[in-house]
Amino acid sequence: MQQVRYHVVRSQGLFDVDNTTLLDGCADAPMAAGERRLVVVDSAVDALHGDRIRTWFDAHDVAATIVALRADEEVKQWDSVSAVIDAMNAFGIDRRREPVLAVGGGVLTDVVGFAASLYRRGTPYLRIPTTLIGLVDAGVGVKTGVNYAAGKNRVGTYAAAKATFLDRTWLSTLDPRHVSNGLAEVLKVALMKSAELFELLERSGRDLLEDRLLGSTPELDAAAATVVAESIHLMLEELQPNLWESTLERCVDYGHTFSPVIEMRALPSLLHGEAVAVDMALTTVIGELRGYVSIEQSARVLAVMRQLGLPTWDDVLAEPGLLASALRDTVRHRDGQQRLPLPVGIGGHRFVNDVTDAELQRALELLRSRSRDHAQETR
Amino acid sequence: MQQVRYHVVRSQGLFDVDNTTLLDGCADAPMAAGERRLVVVDSAVDALHGDRIRTWFDAHDVAATIVALRADEEVKQWDSVSAVIDAMNAFGIDRRREPVLAVGGGVLTDVVGFAASLYRRGTPYLRIPTTLIGLVDAGVGVKTGVNYAAGKNRVGTYAAAKATFLDRTWLSTLDPRHVSNGLAEVLKVALMKSAELFELLERSGRDLLEDRLLGSTPELDAAAATVVAESIHLMLEELQPNLWESTLERCVDYGHTFSPVIEMRALPSLLHGEAVAVDMALTTVIGELRGYVSIEQSARVLAVMRQLGLPTWDDVLAEPGLLASALRDTVRHRDGQQRLPLPVGIGGHRFVNDVTDAELQRALELLRSRSRDHAQETR
Repeated sequence: MQQVRYHVVRSQGLFDVDNTTLLDGCADAPMAAGERRLVVVDSAVDALHGDRIRTWFDAHDVAATIVALRADEEVKQWDSVSAVIDAMNAFGIDRRREPVLAVGGGVLTDVVGFAASLYRRGTPYLRIPTTLIGLVDAGVGVKTGVNYAAGKNRVGTYAAAKATFLDRTWLSTLDPRHVSNGLAEVLKVALMKSAELFELLERSGRDLLEDRLLGSTPELDAAAATVVAESIHLMLEELQPNLWESTLERCVDYGHTFSPVIEMRALPSLLHGEAVAVDMALTTVIGELRGYVSIEQSARVLAVMRQLGLPTWDDVLAEPGLLASALRDTVRHRDGQQRLPLPVGIGGHRFVNDVTDAELQRALELLRSRSRDHAQETR
Repeated sequence: MQQVRYHVVRSQGLFDVDNTTLLDGCADAPMAAGERRLVVVDSAVDALHGDRIRTWFDAHDVAATIVALRADEEVKQWDSVSAVIDAMNAFGIDRRREPVLAVGGGVLTDVVGFAASLYRRGTPYLRIPTTLIGLVDAGVGVKTGVNYAAGKNRVGTYAAAKATFLDRTWLSTLDPRHVSNGLAEVLKVALMKSAELFELLERSGRDLLEDRLLGSTPELDAAAATVVAESIHLMLEELQPNLWESTLERCVDYGHTFSPVIEMRALPSLLHGEAVAVDMALTTVIGELRGYVSIEQSARVLAVMRQLGLPTWDDVLAEPGLLASALRDTVRHRDGQQRLPLPVGIGGHRFVNDVTDAELQRALELLRSRSRDHAQETR
């Protein structure tokens, strides 16, 4: 039996000089003056916050070796894992007592988590997500990995970080497109599990996006805190009983049936959350055609996506055979069945195994016309 | 909680056309006519047994895609893992229902197991060890991995094969040096845990080696069966309560403190078991200097090594700083302490944390003189 325990610790301004959360915020991963740490930082974060990060470590007398690493989908490949392993080798890391710190978005934490899980067959690591998708999705799961050839996250491990430190203040320097990217994963859990969360996005999504979830007014702060806390809560509720995916009917896989192929095919034009949004638009329309979702509900879902700055269509969708091949690959991934989560109303779901190519084509045409109509309306 | 179950199935002549063990020998990994499998075979095994293997799959109507892979320590690197992942991708393997078969020695099964454990974050695999070290050691553990830079098995996973099929008849085509290589791991568990097994090696080791454990006479057959069964039994007894090495005091690490550095430094001149033997010779002498092992017992151990065709010395040992740096790396691997298993008498052990550089030097000089004396005697 292997037991897994991991912590999610909330704090604001982790690298403010007087913030000691990283020292004593997690009893299972303490850090003390006189120790040393390997810190892998997304290059983009290093450029913006590197000085602040170095100052913090100096002030707390922790000898940090800081390694900047480019981390986007195009370099989410073994070579990046290898670069992290090289850094661990050069550091001469102790396999039980010197957790690697990963500071960056989902790609960075996936890559560093993968490297750490392999190094000496498992070295602890800590995550400090700096993007919204990192905060609400990649940062709270137990999956690591990289793309391989055309396969999205085709190789990886299940390896929980000892702790993840959630800090919304990073979002102040995040590109708005990356805020939208994270909101796609929030919308995913809302559609599957929570009408309340959906309605909050419907009401405040556009303002939250504009405010980058920083909470510039008390109302926006309350809404942002709820969005982050609720999506993490709903994610963990699904993950905890099923950490190793012994059950392959996972509603958190919603938006992740066609999107792996869409994302890899469109690379680098779509971000992960954008590809997920396109998948959710398509499967919402499938739900509508089946009568699981009303026409009105379907229209609300697509409207919220637009408010969140997310696409509902990409021309890649129409490439002959692409959706059918994505579905075939999903079947290989889900033990011979589709196990496709579809929305039922808003906030509910069911799993189906009988989606046909013809049905995909009908949904595709309907979604295409909706997207055209919308484009004409907004012209 | 994650539970792990794996099977060790014994059979003779797995690829004899009328042998059905691979079809129905393991209830957790059945194989049936009409199915297909990806089979990764050590190139050397493929050259000797490939026709027989293909005939067996044809006869049982299983569509086998057979991939031959070079597998020795020099290519125990990520590129080999990547080649197996490419093969899994090309095969379009189902992540739950099409276990990969690994047919070869310890390097091959470690590489294939590593690739399988990463592919879609875990695809089942089966092991068919074709060497003695595979039968008694690599084939019954849960570790996978490859070397990285100068680090022996520096990256890898804990990933049990669904089943391992043990078949001594492979040894008929095994180079005698590789039989010795496997006997080193047998000697390791004997020295730590079983005076009886040691005495069996002392009595019959030379004949077993000459007979390649094939059992050409009833006496040799009984001895070979005991050697294989006992070493597996003793290994599993240690591994089962400690699959993920939560306890770092592992007597199966005996011979594996200095050998990783010795082996990688001497590459390709020493096989894994040979480097382990050199480590055991050194640590036996440390035990002697400490009075844990008598002079007479120490002499018996070195004599058995020679009978088994194993080295007790390599000039790499004398490289300045090599042993000290190996010990430092072991400390990093064992959570800040040496946790060095040393023999106590024959068949017993204890863990120590206080070996000094000066003690290593004394042991080195003593072992060197013993090896010189022996070389002169046998001239």
